[in-house]
Amino acid sequence: MQIKEIKLEDLNPQNFIAEKTKEISATVGQGLAINALSGGVDSSAVTMLGHKALGKRLKTYFIQNGLMRQDEPQQIASLFKGFGVDVEVIDAQENFFKALKGVTDPEEKREAITQTFYKDVFGKLVRKSGAKYLLQGTILTDVEETVAGIKRQHNVFEQLGIDPKQAFGYKIIEPLVELRKDGVRKVAQALGLPESVYNRMPFPGPALSARVIGEVTPQKIKTVRQATTITEEALAGVRAFQYMAILHNDRVTGIRDGKRDFGLQIEIRCWDSTDARVGKPTRLTFETLDKLAQRIVTEVPGVVSVTYNITPKPPSTLEAV
Amino acid sequence: MQIKEIKLEDLNPQNFIAEKTKEISATVGQGLAINALSGGVDSSAVTMLGHKALGKRLKTYFIQNGLMRQDEPQQIASLFKGFGVDVEVIDAQENFFKALKGVTDPEEKREAITQTFYKDVFGKLVRKSGAKYLLQGTILTDVEETVAGIKRQHNVFEQLGIDPKQAFGYKIIEPLVELRKDGVRKVAQALGLPESVYNRMPFPGPALSARVIGEVTPQKIKTVRQATTITEEALAGVRAFQYMAILHNDRVTGIRDGKRDFGLQIEIRCWDSTDARVGKPTRLTFETLDKLAQRIVTEVPGVVSVTYNITPKPPSTLEAV
Repeated sequence: MQIKEIKLEDLNPQNFIAEKTKEISATVGQGLAINALSGGVDSSAVTMLGHKALGKRLKTYFIQNGLMRQDEPQQIASLFKGFGVDVEVIDAQENFFKALKGVTDPEEKREAITQTFYKDVFGKLVRKSGAKYLLQGTILTDVEETVAGIKRQHNVFEQLGIDPKQAFGYKIIEPLVELRKDGVRKVAQALGLPESVYNRMPFPGPALSARVIGEVTPQKIKTVRQATTITEEALAGVRAFQYMAILHNDRVTGIRDGKRDFGLQIEIRCWDSTDARVGKPTRLTFETLDKLAQRIVTEVPGVVSVTYNITPKPPSTLEAV
Repeated sequence: MQIKEIKLEDLNPQNFIAEKTKEISATVGQGLAINALSGGVDSSAVTMLGHKALGKRLKTYFIQNGLMRQDEPQQIASLFKGFGVDVEVIDAQENFFKALKGVTDPEEKREAITQTFYKDVFGKLVRKSGAKYLLQGTILTDVEETVAGIKRQHNVFEQLGIDPKQAFGYKIIEPLVELRKDGVRKVAQALGLPESVYNRMPFPGPALSARVIGEVTPQKIKTVRQATTITEEALAGVRAFQYMAILHNDRVTGIRDGKRDFGLQIEIRCWDSTDARVGKPTRLTFETLDKLAQRIVTEVPGVVSVTYNITPKPPSTLEAV
């Protein structure tokens, strides 16, 4: 199957929205469709398109995996509520933390999250809902990376625990598949989504679990979540492609109240980049770095040390794991 | 025993040297003395004082523990050779790496090194040499820290594996015990030692093993040694109290030749401080940081990421472990 790319300069967002809404309506007819919203620009745009086309016949779930940033589930549900979209938040924190227990290898962590999401949580919701249509925010880059072997190629319904042989009638709708990220941002803006969504900083699929080196536990996620909130506040005014806080597994010596404290280290990364393929550390001022480090060691329990990454990509990557 | 401090403003280095040389001569008489030289300012000054007083009747050892910086043993032996001091380099690398195998706790690492040094290596040399006098570079701050319980109080001869009950006649000579570091530097300069010794940057007792987080292995020491050489070259012109490279135990994702490389991370620390009690990260330029990171990821095999520490002491400490 050859997908015809819609280049940014050829994209008329209003026409695109009208066309895709019509296509979704025609495909689903009087049936039910289902989708998972993560708050990213792709799944947000798909939710809006599906809602325009199907109204209440689109069932949208937000999977609370326990790995999101501070207040993220509530903020996203409340944002879409304002557009008349009911988002059902599914608390699956236990499932995810159970799957992540004892897992330290980054690839195995990703796999544990993928499996838990598809098989354990979202798969059950799809089967229970009776929906035969699944809306997904796949974009052209995802397809290319699958073909190139960078991301795994997969049969989505098999991942959802639905036997493809018995699954006649199940259908995946991917309205964004002719676009790249820049096109999706333009469509998201035209759909009336706020800048915090259409210009949202990249955030990894495995969420904060990608920001914890070594085993992921509720306590470690809590720590990195606090550091993330502070980092995002402190660097909000900085023109950067992406910034993040990473919790190390290594412990380092610190002093608290005159006593030795073998404590935690947080690493800050802040990237200048246009497309994530190459990147350079943003040249933040030492005033900014000082304040950020000071806030983290003061406000995040257990942290005694903060570093700033000074390596370009390559050989570094933007995310640590 | 009350030690009377010689304050810096009251110190006449030439008189001090003449007096201590006389005292050492009088104490040792026609006997033999022994000392261990590490290349630090304290043990270097003691070696010179002992040499002035005793000539060939002072036996000076340099213990090659395998944890020193690039070419350090050779450089120190060659420097002292120029002063007519024969330094015998004892290769004890295997003893130290054996003692460090599997040890990850920082305190246990220190203890393993202390025990290996005293009991296993230097103790044997003392007993074999027939020397009844041991010259040590103890300074006033060491004594105070022992009394305050920061450093362990210890009976040195017991640590050397010499039974105190049978050890009648063994004597420790501590010619620097009335001085603090600044006084020792002045004396070392007056003794004719080069600036690289009398103004030597602080370097920890456990040497590069203090710069490896987690287990210390010959390979890890090799890696951190290479990073240390580059860091010391790159920051040589910077006015800072101390700078260092630290090898993390955590691995992070990198890219090499277009492929994923789960690699090593080096942390750089560079401190503004006057007395090591408090410190602030030096505000290096990003030009300097960029070049340093670039050299490390290019020249040190396996390293894909370099960070710069931005935390003050406290709550950080100058060294990581």
